[in-house]
Amino acid sequence: MRRRELASDDPALFTEVAARAEVGYLVIVTAEGWPRAVGLNFCAVDGRIYFHGALAGEKHAACALPGGARAGFTMTVPYSMIPSYWSAPGYACPATHFFKSVEIKGRCGLVDDPAEKARALQALMDKYQPEGGFDPIDPAEPRYAKALQGVGVYRLEAESWTGKAKFGQNEPAKLRRRFIEELRRRAGPMDRETADEIERGLGDDA
Amino acid sequence: MRRRELASDDPALFTEVAARAEVGYLVIVTAEGWPRAVGLNFCAVDGRIYFHGALAGEKHAACALPGGARAGFTMTVPYSMIPSYWSAPGYACPATHFFKSVEIKGRCGLVDDPAEKARALQALMDKYQPEGGFDPIDPAEPRYAKALQGVGVYRLEAESWTGKAKFGQNEPAKLRRRFIEELRRRAGPMDRETADEIERGLGDDA
Repeated sequence: MRRRELASDDPALFTEVAARAEVGYLVIVTAEGWPRAVGLNFCAVDGRIYFHGALAGEKHAACALPGGARAGFTMTVPYSMIPSYWSAPGYACPATHFFKSVEIKGRCGLVDDPAEKARALQALMDKYQPEGGFDPIDPAEPRYAKALQGVGVYRLEAESWTGKAKFGQNEPAKLRRRFIEELRRRAGPMDRETADEIERGLGDDA
Repeated sequence: MRRRELASDDPALFTEVAARAEVGYLVIVTAEGWPRAVGLNFCAVDGRIYFHGALAGEKHAACALPGGARAGFTMTVPYSMIPSYWSAPGYACPATHFFKSVEIKGRCGLVDDPAEKARALQALMDKYQPEGGFDPIDPAEPRYAKALQGVGVYRLEAESWTGKAKFGQNEPAKLRRRFIEELRRRAGPMDRETADEIERGLGDDA
């Protein structure tokens, strides 16, 4: 049951989740009818998802169908776990996990154009190796020209997508303020960012 | 194209990835024929995957089919990014990402038995809230009895699964030793653990 109030179609959410999610999940159906989610590194360019892989195998077979195969793509940025005892002493049920996510329904295809392949792989490098340390990916450069021929680059075009950002929006403002306090005290890896997101959601009630 | 040498059917890998992956991806096909990966918190008990959710909606419709619907489940523990310049100055292609993952093909169903529901939710709490702070989930406890009735608990039974552990096994020992050195120098969040895994893979060559 989707909680409507968490859903978002804000393009900024799409862009943020695509930039921050380290692993995305391509969803395909195999020739034998099994649904599969394949974890992979990816990037988004102009709202399209790009990833690379071999030019053979199950992913290739499912993605390179003429006309574009139906595919899904899910990406998540996990924020903090919210322990139950911040809401209810002794009672497990309120334990929850805050997150941002985007789920795409779309069509997947193989990219043929060497220039588009190069742009996609450059964007992938910019995401995962932002410190640089490599020559720009240029299809006219002999080393890259050969590599570009041998690698499969895939593009997933969204037909629709749903974003979610769960930060306790259904909880009373008083409890959300407690989460902010507890998160800032605990100060684990994502706790400060999670507190900031809850605070943003509270707006003038903060 | 699956690289055979990275594949693993070691039950210890299954257990480790299930314990450490924060978000798992349930793969279903909707009534309209769209493949979806739904990110969720989950736990494994005796090789079965458990998660909870509403007793209505698309996930419920896809999972609660009599006889068990075909479903997938993918879980990943991302380790370090390996920048291209550790392998080849100026050349982007060797950039890679080390990880452990498990992909399951199985059948999904709704759990009816309150005792099994309670055990699954207890295991979920033990995973995500290991510090405790809640009364054990007991279907005889009135607060929990009511909650257990209202929540959907789902069980995914594997028909088959494939694990992967990618830590540069295809690379020459000399380069892998360089990765270990560079990772220990960089010392980012997963770098020490990644170096240890590469070292384990090298065995006596380390």
